[in-house]
Amino acid sequence: MDDVKAIFEPQRVVLIGSSRIREKVGMASPQLFKSVIYNMRKFFRGKTYILDVDGKAGYNKLSKLPKIPELAVIMLPPRQSIEQAEKCAKMSVKALVMITGGYNDEQRQKLLKIKQKYGIRILGPNTIMGVINTANGLNTTFERNVMPKKGNIAFISQSGGVGACLLDWACFYNIGVSKFAFVGDKIDIDDVDLLRYYGNDKDTKVICLYMEGIKAGRNFIEEARKIVKKKPILALKGGITQESAKRAKSHTASIAGSDEIFDAAFKKAGIIRVGDIEELMNAAVALSKQAPMRGENVAIVSNVGGPAILAADAVVRNNLKLASLSERTKKKIESLYLGVDATNPIDIIADARAERYSKVLNLVLADKNVDGVLIINMLKSCFFEPEDAKVIPKIAAKHPEKPVVDMPAGGEDFALVYKVLGKTNIPLYNLPEKAVKALKVLRTYGKIIEKH
Amino acid sequence: MDDVKAIFEPQRVVLIGSSRIREKVGMASPQLFKSVIYNMRKFFRGKTYILDVDGKAGYNKLSKLPKIPELAVIMLPPRQSIEQAEKCAKMSVKALVMITGGYNDEQRQKLLKIKQKYGIRILGPNTIMGVINTANGLNTTFERNVMPKKGNIAFISQSGGVGACLLDWACFYNIGVSKFAFVGDKIDIDDVDLLRYYGNDKDTKVICLYMEGIKAGRNFIEEARKIVKKKPILALKGGITQESAKRAKSHTASIAGSDEIFDAAFKKAGIIRVGDIEELMNAAVALSKQAPMRGENVAIVSNVGGPAILAADAVVRNNLKLASLSERTKKKIESLYLGVDATNPIDIIADARAERYSKVLNLVLADKNVDGVLIINMLKSCFFEPEDAKVIPKIAAKHPEKPVVDMPAGGEDFALVYKVLGKTNIPLYNLPEKAVKALKVLRTYGKIIEKH
Repeated sequence: MDDVKAIFEPQRVVLIGSSRIREKVGMASPQLFKSVIYNMRKFFRGKTYILDVDGKAGYNKLSKLPKIPELAVIMLPPRQSIEQAEKCAKMSVKALVMITGGYNDEQRQKLLKIKQKYGIRILGPNTIMGVINTANGLNTTFERNVMPKKGNIAFISQSGGVGACLLDWACFYNIGVSKFAFVGDKIDIDDVDLLRYYGNDKDTKVICLYMEGIKAGRNFIEEARKIVKKKPILALKGGITQESAKRAKSHTASIAGSDEIFDAAFKKAGIIRVGDIEELMNAAVALSKQAPMRGENVAIVSNVGGPAILAADAVVRNNLKLASLSERTKKKIESLYLGVDATNPIDIIADARAERYSKVLNLVLADKNVDGVLIINMLKSCFFEPEDAKVIPKIAAKHPEKPVVDMPAGGEDFALVYKVLGKTNIPLYNLPEKAVKALKVLRTYGKIIEKH
Repeated sequence: MDDVKAIFEPQRVVLIGSSRIREKVGMASPQLFKSVIYNMRKFFRGKTYILDVDGKAGYNKLSKLPKIPELAVIMLPPRQSIEQAEKCAKMSVKALVMITGGYNDEQRQKLLKIKQKYGIRILGPNTIMGVINTANGLNTTFERNVMPKKGNIAFISQSGGVGACLLDWACFYNIGVSKFAFVGDKIDIDDVDLLRYYGNDKDTKVICLYMEGIKAGRNFIEEARKIVKKKPILALKGGITQESAKRAKSHTASIAGSDEIFDAAFKKAGIIRVGDIEELMNAAVALSKQAPMRGENVAIVSNVGGPAILAADAVVRNNLKLASLSERTKKKIESLYLGVDATNPIDIIADARAERYSKVLNLVLADKNVDGVLIINMLKSCFFEPEDAKVIPKIAAKHPEKPVVDMPAGGEDFALVYKVLGKTNIPLYNLPEKAVKALKVLRTYGKIIEKH
């Protein structure tokens, strides 16, 4: 565990690559090397050493570094990477991030022996993007300037591509990230090591996994069961079908198990399974910003009719319930706003602005029959202005035990309200179904806490 | 039918509102009136007359207009709207778009009697946004400057809110639209009238419906069955559950039928049902740009492993098949690119650029075992550059009978490739599942054509 810490929290890092070698098919190249150097120099707040095996940039030998780094990031073709890994191990470097892939079984075995002989910890090979820690600026990716904002969601991705997509999504939508680990072939450090580390990481509140296969399934379940009491774990599983599973095996050299087994394991572990990348991100945002939902009853407050009906459909489809407001709440709303029918979903009509949202939301959240609220605030076809949305986090903060999510449907409407609410603790979704799924995941985690 | 034509293709339009009346709860207001005037003056290429019942702007009486308009757009509270509707009918105006809602049953009956007595055709009331025709610039919405680009997708929305969301989506993602109709309470002009009109409209290639309830179900099915032979029809149905259906009834005053009945009716009619707003838009784009798929066999060409596995999962989940490439195709690809395993999904490795995509795509499309292709081109964690995507429409154009869709996953990656491919005939999606669903809808429409 201490050595996994060296992966994320080193004081000194050496980047080992070549200014000359370019694989014909594969990732090792001078430009990848340069880009990792660029990112580390730009973001990392510790010491970065450069080791060019061709001696053109930085140091040309590990022994020449002024101090021994805790972490080495190696991005050479397999043969040369293994050579460098052994040199690092001999020099008591604590951990390795192996970026490049294309290892055959023999090469994997060699690497494993180095780990066994010297006790060095290895992330990878074939991690492609390595690691990110927004707390100290560690960023071993070769995507220049791609650094998510600091936040409390941590990621473990078995696939470089899916991980890159998650990272891209996080950056594009300004979603706060604590740590990112691309695990690749998992020759040593695996999901269990990383889960344990994230479980103890004070910067991490929600853990997201993308996995294709798993080793040490029992340990994984046990570790997860411990963690989910304090932090939710979300998992997206790739390779659910026989055909795609076969492919997953060749992809990252681990055995993709039967989908049903995974499903059962996730349930047992208290891990929440999601269906796709967007659902994973949407669920993580909900869990990172809002309280778990204590019951099934959802109230919908909307300035439009149709999207509220679609949301109501989604509530029922997701095995939640449309809350029955108390007569007192209904009468209060209807007496305040003539023409409003306060039957849930509550259509507060297209001319509703901040004041109407504020009053109705406050009444609805105070109703004991309501466990969570979905707000719909369309701009188009309505009088609502983006700045009106500012009242939502204010009112929601008065009822911190009940989750609130917001849904300004569509493309531009979503983008405009996102500018106002994106940095607050109100999760935003661009479609009724997505907002309801967010409440669903908050309810699911609520049940997990109650059970575990 | 001629009168429905007056809704979309008038030479002269009168906008009837008030510079004074503002409903306490409701849409009628001077600012709405002004905004519709603004949009019509900006976009409409026919003649626009203004009739302010308070006489401050434009004309104050219908009889003073220099020529009788074919279309009147009325945006007053119910009582005054009905008065104006009758005046229009007496002056032989051919059709009315009734923007505002809040009608009680008695008022609806009055309006219906006007229609019956004078033969005038009525869209609405409660259409909220009225109509858009990108061919002549007609735009009766009150969202200033919101005008989708000209294209071949037509919409019918029973809900102003859902319609506004679809419109917002189309504008934000630059999706080409032919016509938009917000039908509201459907006191006269209904889905059947509009379907028939869109069916004959040369600018329309794909028809999208959002509906909560339906009148004249048999006519609807018959009309649709005729149209789907030449144009696909997509439908999103709101109010699928008892609870939400009850709400839908009060929302637009039509009876939302049992969901199963709708499902059966859609199948009988050859209408493709979709699950949410995004799926509707994604499917419409696919059908408007690509050929129907002739078989089930999908090839995936990707520069990343994980997203390709998620796509393969989605292929199987959507009852499509992972194409088995012929030995000849596989060998050719593998001989061209050492290290590439051409088993579908074909991972052409993270350093693939335009040339590799071009050659592999060409080989795969030429393979008789392949009916459609999903391309994955991530930028992050890969060497692919947005401009590399330009080869895709070029190669796809050589095989016009086989659909091709593209998937640059994530947020920024998607946006960057969209800038390059968004205007071409290659549909783009930001997640594996969405791209597979697009191929699925192309296959579904392929089957509908084969059957009908």
